[in-house]
This record gives sequence, structure tokens and C-alpha cells, in this order.
Amino acid sequence: MTAAAVEEARERSVRTTELLDAWPVLSPDERLEGLKLMPHAEAEDLLLALPARDQAELILGMSPGERRSWMRLLPPDDAADVIQEAPEPEREGLLALLDEPTRKEVAALLAYAEDDAGGLMNPRYARLRPEMSVDEAITYLRRQARERLETIYYVYVLDAEQRLLGVVSFRELFAAAPDKRVRDIMRTGVVTAPEDMDQEALSRLFAETNYLAIPVVDREAHVKGIVTVDDIVDVVQEEATEDIQKIGGMEALDAPYLEVGFRKMVRKRAGWLAILFVGEMFTATAMGYYEREIARAVVLALFVPLIISSGGNSGSQASTLVVRALALGEVKLRDWWRVIRREVAAGLALGTILALIGFGRIVIWQLVFHRLYGVDMYGIHYFRIAITVAGSLIGVVMWGTMAGSMLPIVLRRIGFDPASASAPFVATLVDVSGLVIYFSVASFVLRGTLL
Amino acid sequence: MTAAAVEEARERSVRTTELLDAWPVLSPDERLEGLKLMPHAEAEDLLLALPARDQAELILGMSPGERRSWMRLLPPDDAADVIQEAPEPEREGLLALLDEPTRKEVAALLAYAEDDAGGLMNPRYARLRPEMSVDEAITYLRRQARERLETIYYVYVLDAEQRLLGVVSFRELFAAAPDKRVRDIMRTGVVTAPEDMDQEALSRLFAETNYLAIPVVDREAHVKGIVTVDDIVDVVQEEATEDIQKIGGMEALDAPYLEVGFRKMVRKRAGWLAILFVGEMFTATAMGYYEREIARAVVLALFVPLIISSGGNSGSQASTLVVRALALGEVKLRDWWRVIRREVAAGLALGTILALIGFGRIVIWQLVFHRLYGVDMYGIHYFRIAITVAGSLIGVVMWGTMAGSMLPIVLRRIGFDPASASAPFVATLVDVSGLVIYFSVASFVLRGTLL
Repeated sequence: MTAAAVEEARERSVRTTELLDAWPVLSPDERLEGLKLMPHAEAEDLLLALPARDQAELILGMSPGERRSWMRLLPPDDAADVIQEAPEPEREGLLALLDEPTRKEVAALLAYAEDDAGGLMNPRYARLRPEMSVDEAITYLRRQARERLETIYYVYVLDAEQRLLGVVSFRELFAAAPDKRVRDIMRTGVVTAPEDMDQEALSRLFAETNYLAIPVVDREAHVKGIVTVDDIVDVVQEEATEDIQKIGGMEALDAPYLEVGFRKMVRKRAGWLAILFVGEMFTATAMGYYEREIARAVVLALFVPLIISSGGNSGSQASTLVVRALALGEVKLRDWWRVIRREVAAGLALGTILALIGFGRIVIWQLVFHRLYGVDMYGIHYFRIAITVAGSLIGVVMWGTMAGSMLPIVLRRIGFDPASASAPFVATLVDVSGLVIYFSVASFVLRGTLL
Repeated sequence: MTAAAVEEARERSVRTTELLDAWPVLSPDERLEGLKLMPHAEAEDLLLALPARDQAELILGMSPGERRSWMRLLPPDDAADVIQEAPEPEREGLLALLDEPTRKEVAALLAYAEDDAGGLMNPRYARLRPEMSVDEAITYLRRQARERLETIYYVYVLDAEQRLLGVVSFRELFAAAPDKRVRDIMRTGVVTAPEDMDQEALSRLFAETNYLAIPVVDREAHVKGIVTVDDIVDVVQEEATEDIQKIGGMEALDAPYLEVGFRKMVRKRAGWLAILFVGEMFTATAMGYYEREIARAVVLALFVPLIISSGGNSGSQASTLVVRALALGEVKLRDWWRVIRREVAAGLALGTILALIGFGRIVIWQLVFHRLYGVDMYGIHYFRIAITVAGSLIGVVMWGTMAGSMLPIVLRRIGFDPASASAPFVATLVDVSGLVIYFSVASFVLRGTLL
């Protein structure tokens, strides 16, 4: 029997995995069809594993009777998410499908913002009183588990006013001598989250503490619910996706790439692209200011893309580093002076490396082409041009690392999302100033010769 | 008593939080000092919550006697991580501090690559036999918990040859009728991970299934250990950080920004910066090719940064979108045709928007300045120049979105990390070809007038 059972178990898991795999490319109807074809237990697992958006879509596609049994399958925090994902006119109806006590819990959860600790928490946590014996506690928990309980990994010890006294992991409770008091084995100093803690801060708290669940408390230390780490994985992915898309120079899509509507996607990208374009127009203005110099020494124009892109690239490195470090809490606002010192030094080092490559390129090309073909690639003043390019590179790269590292910090300081300091945004900023640096260096070095 | 207890509990949690908060800026000696000043239970919690790198640093800073007791505090998977973080000569010594059975477990874990499922798993999972009654199972688990057990959230049901038959959550076991058989309440079709599954794929599996733990099995379905979701939060953060840094155009730092050594950081950034610089040099070559055109119509040079940066920006949007979608499994290689169709259409829409803005800007500036100051900003052929700029923008932006979206897919196809298709990399690619597009359009539109 066992070998067959193993085989069967494997087959079932393969089937669910295959459906999950094909999920993104299926139409809503096909998804519903797939779900109905599965054995009920597997279909339940699948539905529970889906993101709230997909759950809502599926449930809204069902007949009224089916809707009801599937909605009742969801734990209260997931039910609240599904209701939030549903279009406004459907929400009341979905809420009404729940049984009375759950409806109250869900309605309470709906009052919290989706991105707050309160919006992520589950109100069904396991609770004990401090004066219980371990044996009594286990029996009492067994009763709680039989009713409705989301997780019993951590059990919270509350006083008569429902305030948090301590926590005991179920494993510890289970392993303790049966006649000990809960008070004697519980840990105090529980790490808690306030109801309105932002989900990004909450995910940092999980990362710092490595706990499987963190209780959400109000100002009087009453436990309102618990947030479990499995919800945090989704939060972390979501926040990283948002940051990555912002770093790429657009608004966060808030939906999978292939599922977001074409118009919506273009709108989310066009905004920043147009802003960057308008900003970049100042390069035309700056170049116009140096039009006479360019006319006199066309060779100067050749290096414009090289110089400004080097500033943009070093700036985008610096900004992504600082944006991510701020998001992870590795860098705080008060560290700005350490960051700028680092980045000025890094800019000097990186700029010097590029300057050496650029200088070598110009001088070697000139000498090689002169020798082989008798052609002067960069004219008789090639050496001064090489100096101009090298000097500008050091200046532009240093400016790039400084601007790139400080912009996210400034943005957070004035209350914006640091991730808006995207690579393209920093590049645009640095392009305009890079041109000014380049042409200033050029007029200094080339005065009396080319200019 | 209760109010005082609440107060005390809150104070303790504040103290730990404060120390964690200050952690990044403390020197290794200060950290060790801080740990020693805390009550023992709190110090234990703090140590357990730290990343493996910091744990290793702290433990190596202790006296031999302390080292031993702290190493023995760690569960086997954490102990293996600490040993992997320690310098080579210290590893044997740390391993020797563990008790005999743990040493064996840890040595087995050390054989797995750090980034594989095998390197993340914990061998101490709760196990049952299918023919046990629920009551027997609970008693048996209580004995397992008293010995050494990392988590009892999920209990795995194994046959006599230790092969996986099913799983039952502890909550379900607890809530079931005491005389039922484990076989009757267990779920089959367990989602499992092979030992060598990459941690990124594993984190996707967790995201898809929403489980708190996934068992790691070998080819014969023997359970080797379990990976719990709290370890996955760290994996997800780590992978996102790597991707973000690569998208920013550098190698992943593999350490917090302020902690990584200056030389190492410059090395990780200089490599890509130099590669991009060398690639960008082709812009000078391309511009050199059009030197005569620029000399004849200097006005063309003014718009070079504007045009090429628009291609770079739209390309960096497309590449970050696709890189992230690939990482999350939202887009698969076989979707390339859908992606390219979307991006060509998006490029056309976005390019047209920028073209309209650019066209308007040139024409309006020209007319306004002519009227107010009698100055011809862009010469008498301003209208043709506006057409050139607008036409080039459409071409360059479409090329940017196409190249940006396909590059990550091509990179993955040939076995590289798609995240290497960084914003600066795509921008550099598009810069060179953008120049060619611009000057080709210019020679077509301006032939016989300016050129």
C-alpha cells in the first residue's frame, strides 16, 4: 500500500503544481473550470494559496450558492482582503455571505488600511491565562483549536483585561512539565506591533526578530490579532516589486506584468517618461548655450553621450544602493553624513578609473590612427581633449555618486518615497549638470587653443 | 500585579528593540558588551534573531567556554549557517563545540550549497506513523517536543521506510476526535521541494502555496528536513536586494551598504561601470561617423542627449518590468512573443507621446523667441528639425522598449541572470543605436536643406 500511496500523493501534488504553473495564462473562465474539475480538498488548497485578487475574481465568477461556501472557507483576514479586492457594489453582498461572528471580525478588519498591521492581522489567535497549569492550558487550547483558530504556534498570555502579559510557543508549552504554571514558562518582553504600523516597517520587524507571528496591540496593550510570517512573505515580495518598478523609472504597476491592462500600463509608464523627457530638455538648453563652442570644436560633441552617461550610470548605482539600504533599514536618515563621505570617495575612485580608460582611449586611438593612416582622429590638440574628457569624467562621476546617494535621503526626509529616486531620474539630473561640468572644463583646458 | 507586569514587559521589549535599532552602528566589541549586559533570556532571543554573519562575529569574539554554550543554543540549520560564515580555520573548532547528535546533523547540512533547499532546511521536524490514533499521536509528539524539535506546526506522516505519506497540521490534529487514525485526517498530495532546489524557486513555491513549512525530500520521497517560512522571508529580501543592485548596474554587494568594505564596494561597482563605459565609447565612434553632419548643422547636436536618454529611459522601464516578472515567475521564457508584442505597442504609444511633446517644444520655442526677440532658436529649418526629433523619438523609444524587454529573456535563455539586463546596460545599448536612428532620420528629413 505504501508505495502506491507515495505514488498517488506525488501525482496529486504534480497536478496542483501544474495548474498553478499554467495559472497566469488562463482566462478567468478557464481558471474556474480548472478549479471545479479538481477534487474538493485540492481545490480548497488551491484557492487558499491564491492572491486575494485572484480569489476575488474566482468567487465573483461563481453562482450565489457556491460563493457562500467558498467565502466561508476563508479565514477572516483573507476574507477581508477578498472583499477589498472586489468592486465596490459587490462588497456588501460578499460580507453578507459570512456567518454572524465572522462577519463582525471581518467588518472590524475592513476598518484598517490594507497596508497597515491592522489590515494584515488575523483576530483568531490562541490565548491563555497566566495562572493555568500547563496541563490545563493544553486542554483549553484543544478546545480553542476545535472552534476557530488560525494558528497555535504562539500562544499569548493575557490578563483579565485582555492585555498582553507574555507569550509561550506551543512547543515550549508542550515540552514543559504538566504541573508548572503558564506564568512560569511564558516569555515576557514580547515584541509587538501597533495597529497602524506600516507593512514595510512590519516586515523589517519580522526580519529583525525571526518570529513566526507578531501580535498587533492597541495603545493599552490589548491584543487585536496576530500577523503571521506567511503573510509577510507576500508583503516583502510586493514591496520589493514596487521598489524595483520605481527604480526602473515608472509608477508601481500593482499587478502582474501580463495581467495589467495595456492602457493602465502605458499610463503608469508615460507619466514618469514625460517628466524625465521634460527634465532632459534642459540638456538641449544647456547644449544651446554652448552652441558656439561646439561649432568651433565639433570634436567636443563626440564625447557628450560618453561623459553624461558615465555620470548617469554611477548615479544610478549610488541611488539604487541607498534606496535599498533605506528600505531594509540598513541606512537611516541620520547616517547621511557617513553615506556622503563614502560616496564622494567612491566617486573619486570610480571617476579616476574611467578617466584613465578614457584618456588612454583617446591618446592611443590618435597615435595609432596617425601612424597607420596618417589621420588625425581628434586633431592636433588631442592631448588637451584627452585631459578635458578625463577631468570631466572625474567631476561628473563624483557628482553622480553624490547626487544619486543624497536624492533618496532627501526624498525620504521631505516625506516622499526614496525609491522615486530612480535610475532614470538620477541620470536625467546628472545629464544636465554633467554637460555644464564638461563644457566648463573644456573652456578652461582648451582656451586659447581650440576655443 | 498585572499593570506592573505589563509595564515591565513593555520596558523589556523596548530595551531589546533599542539595541537592535542601534545594532548596525555598533562595533563588534560594543555588540558583545551589549549582549552581556542583557538578562540571559533576552540575550538569547537577540542572538537567535540576528543574521548568521553577526552571530558568527559575536560567537568568535567570545571566550571558549561561552562559545560552547552559545553554539549549543542554535538550532542545527542556524549552526550550519554560522559555521559557513566563520573563516575557514575556525570552522572545525566551532563544529567540535556541538554535542554528538547535533554535530552529525550539522555536518550533513554543511554538505549542501547555502543557496539550495538542502542548505536552508532543518532536520528536526515532527513525524508520525499513519496507524496511530490522534490521542497516541499527541502523546508521542509531546515526547518529541521535549527532546529536540524545531517546529511542530506541521507534522509529517511517514511510512516504515521514512517516506512521506501525508501531512497534518498540528491544529487539525489537536482539533480531531481523539480516537480517529492519523491516516484518516492527514492530507496527501503534499507539496515538497527537492534537495537541490534553488532558494529563489523555493521562495516562489512558498509564495504560490502559502504554507508555513515545506518538506525537503530526496528522489525516493524520504524527508530530509523542513524549510520554514521564516527563513524564506530572509531569502526573499536577499534575492530582491541582489536583483535591485544588479538592476542598478553593479554586482550584488552581499552585505549591508554601510558594513561592506570600501575597496570591495568600489570593486563591485567599477567592473560594470568600466564595461558600460567601454560600451558607451561606441557613441563617440558613432558620433565621429556623423561629424560632418554635425559640423554643417550644429543644431543637431543639441538634441543628442534628449533623444538617446529617452531610449534609455523607456528601455530601463521595460527591462526592470521583465526582470521582476521573470523573478516572480509571472513571465516565463515561452511568453516572449506576448511580451514583445506588448512592448512594441507600448513603445509606439510612449514614443508618440514624447514625440508630440518634443515637436511642440521646438515649434513653440521657435515661434515665441522669434516673435519676442527676433531670434531664430533653431534656424529657418526649424520645422524639419522638429519632424526629425519627433520621428527619431518614436523609433528610439520603440527600440528601447523592445531591446529592454527582450534582453532579460535572452539572458535567461542562454543561462545568465536576467537581472544583469540593468537599466544602465540597456541604456548603453540603446544609446549607440539611438544615435544611428537619430542621424539616419536626420539625413533623410534634412537632405537638401541643412545637410
